[in-house]
Amino acid sequence: MDRAACERLDRADPLRALRAQFELPEGIVYLDGNSLGALPKATARRVGDAIRGEWGRGLIRSWNDAGWIDLARRVGDDLAQLLGAGRGQVVVGDSTSVNLYKVLSVAADLQCKDRPSARVLLSERSNFPTDLYIAESVAAQRGLELLLVEHDALLAALGPHVAAVLWTHVNYRTGRMLPMAEVNRAAHAHGAAVVWDLAHSAGAVPLALTGAADIDADADFAVGCGYKYLNGGPGAPGFAWVHPRHLRRLEAEGGRQPLSGWMGHAAPFAFEPGYRPADGIQRFATGTPPVLALRALECGVATLAAAGPAGGMAAVRAKSVALTDLFIRLVEDRCGGCGLTCITPRRPEERGSQVSLVHPHAFPVMQALIARGIVGDFRADPDGAAGSGILRFGFTPLYTQFADVWAAAEQLAEVLSTEAWRDPRYAQRGAVT
Amino acid sequence: MDRAACERLDRADPLRALRAQFELPEGIVYLDGNSLGALPKATARRVGDAIRGEWGRGLIRSWNDAGWIDLARRVGDDLAQLLGAGRGQVVVGDSTSVNLYKVLSVAADLQCKDRPSARVLLSERSNFPTDLYIAESVAAQRGLELLLVEHDALLAALGPHVAAVLWTHVNYRTGRMLPMAEVNRAAHAHGAAVVWDLAHSAGAVPLALTGAADIDADADFAVGCGYKYLNGGPGAPGFAWVHPRHLRRLEAEGGRQPLSGWMGHAAPFAFEPGYRPADGIQRFATGTPPVLALRALECGVATLAAAGPAGGMAAVRAKSVALTDLFIRLVEDRCGGCGLTCITPRRPEERGSQVSLVHPHAFPVMQALIARGIVGDFRADPDGAAGSGILRFGFTPLYTQFADVWAAAEQLAEVLSTEAWRDPRYAQRGAVT
Repeated sequence: MDRAACERLDRADPLRALRAQFELPEGIVYLDGNSLGALPKATARRVGDAIRGEWGRGLIRSWNDAGWIDLARRVGDDLAQLLGAGRGQVVVGDSTSVNLYKVLSVAADLQCKDRPSARVLLSERSNFPTDLYIAESVAAQRGLELLLVEHDALLAALGPHVAAVLWTHVNYRTGRMLPMAEVNRAAHAHGAAVVWDLAHSAGAVPLALTGAADIDADADFAVGCGYKYLNGGPGAPGFAWVHPRHLRRLEAEGGRQPLSGWMGHAAPFAFEPGYRPADGIQRFATGTPPVLALRALECGVATLAAAGPAGGMAAVRAKSVALTDLFIRLVEDRCGGCGLTCITPRRPEERGSQVSLVHPHAFPVMQALIARGIVGDFRADPDGAAGSGILRFGFTPLYTQFADVWAAAEQLAEVLSTEAWRDPRYAQRGAVT
Repeated sequence: MDRAACERLDRADPLRALRAQFELPEGIVYLDGNSLGALPKATARRVGDAIRGEWGRGLIRSWNDAGWIDLARRVGDDLAQLLGAGRGQVVVGDSTSVNLYKVLSVAADLQCKDRPSARVLLSERSNFPTDLYIAESVAAQRGLELLLVEHDALLAALGPHVAAVLWTHVNYRTGRMLPMAEVNRAAHAHGAAVVWDLAHSAGAVPLALTGAADIDADADFAVGCGYKYLNGGPGAPGFAWVHPRHLRRLEAEGGRQPLSGWMGHAAPFAFEPGYRPADGIQRFATGTPPVLALRALECGVATLAAAGPAGGMAAVRAKSVALTDLFIRLVEDRCGGCGLTCITPRRPEERGSQVSLVHPHAFPVMQALIARGIVGDFRADPDGAAGSGILRFGFTPLYTQFADVWAAAEQLAEVLSTEAWRDPRYAQRGAVT
């Protein structure tokens, strides 16, 4: 494999035309779409029109005339197609953390009602911390125990004592992906509800939340993030999905989620003093929708919908596997003996769309790479040795090229072999490390 | 009083130059800034720069390089100046409803600890419904009773059984303003905590949340909205304020708010599995900050800061009182016998910056006004007769002119006297009414 071979792969790539949807700065290989997706070309104009036209000229009338009041539902329906979910099952708005609080609270409340002796919320110790912090809160409010186990012990930790499990489909640290259908079956066999965090899988891997085509069948609840592979912009709204069987039950029992704001009311503009939840997923809405941010997210979701004619999420996934596989092989070939440990599974079905490498000096190594135009990111490894940490490389099939993978591996090999990372400039940390 | 006199008032207005900060469509008198503030001229460019420059070119690096990570705190500190609060006391982000859930939960939890026999959350029956729906949830989670009383019965309903009170400073329906300092004193005399919703007062009336200058002293908690008088754009982030004595206590006791996401952690980038709340107001933050929306809100808050040299919030308030007083007098003079009832107090110290008129055919009356370029809004009156409702007119001193008030009163008189509202076009309702 050489650079020319990578360029041939790019020319043969059925998704190659989709890269033109993005503004990508010159001289940068951007491998951090797993943290902040790149800017779609349509976004600045769409948001500008929303500001100058809908807000500036339409003013309050735009709630009706520009369809602001239905915007979150429309974006939710667009997004549902990427998640293998149905219309009216996804609500968009609020942060991922807030969405998780809503669905995990409902999951726990339904379980407390049905299985009062199941007193454990189960999650993974290396889950993204905000999930664990929110789960702590949900557990404490109900007198439940939050039990955190290592990744490999998840299935073994299931049992009749488990009320609900909170898994992240693709781990932010390792890039490891769980077999969703298998995990759902195992948890359901014990009566537990399963809440999925799709932050690192929505827009990156095919999903079939409601169950279809042998993939990822029959989940219970899910949340996810708008600003990673969905390209919705920094701090974009998150989303929540609830299986129709739970929506029907909530309707039948008058069940509510704790953040019962006016946008989740059956008739928000009747201004009734008492809460009556809306039907379906709408009861998971809370406050006034963030219109400008939704306009940006709408453009981000559209960049993935545009992959439809080229094979949709299956084609995105095929390219993702090829990109990550190439990177792992190139790093093995070129950086052997440089102190790197790949913590992302080599089996494609066990990983998402990122590759994570541990190095004893990961922070300055990543800074040196960024200075050379290879933009990945660094994550602290709370379990690692002092100074050690994780180099994360995210591969976004819509805009990452095989030639980018080549360039990244080449620069990484150079930074490590020349020890360029020892330059004191690369030790300087910002507020966000 | 005639149109020429109104124009003289505009020429003498010390705030007149501030209108140039806004994009205001030709041919419209916009009297709905109490629902959605007008677009500041700076916003489209600022948000466009954030999209194209900070996001598009800076990509992930902008968390440090563009100061995204501190943006919510900086906007919070800017906003604190308008609220008579100190630096490090205001957190910006999430919807008003979500912010209310956080602070009301903490208020209730502190009270349950200190005064376990106080089992009532007290609010006003005509409070904005999302506040009541959230309060229902907070009460139900703790086995408390949510007691709703009429406005005039608020103070009389206080007693040792009341844990916390949730008041809206300026009522969305009537425009009536509560005497904040007096209410705080009365509630504190009974040991209750006071949570204020400042949705209709932040940016409209002077506030001194931490106590100063004989106004609005010594509140406990507050939340508010970014898209009304703060001109932050549709669905702008809301905010929460907590008195420093409660922040210190939370620090001392390790207290937390229920939406304990990673941005409220003491060290979010250490990725620790257990939650340790940040000091001060930061523990009230939850998820990743909505950067683009914060850039818009920053511009909105700046439009009010710009009033500083002309007298600041005191000058804004003086003009607000003059505008609302003029409108009430003109409506009385010119619309007598037309079936209007003014439900906004005539005493300036008892009202905010809006005037509300009840009419038996309020919906088509407002539609006829909008068709004539006078944009106020309609609110259903759940307590009124069938068909009856509220015409709301909001007066935003930064851009509303005395001549606008004249035009609004003139058109209202004409719509009513000619019964122009009977045109069937004006009965058509959108999703948002």
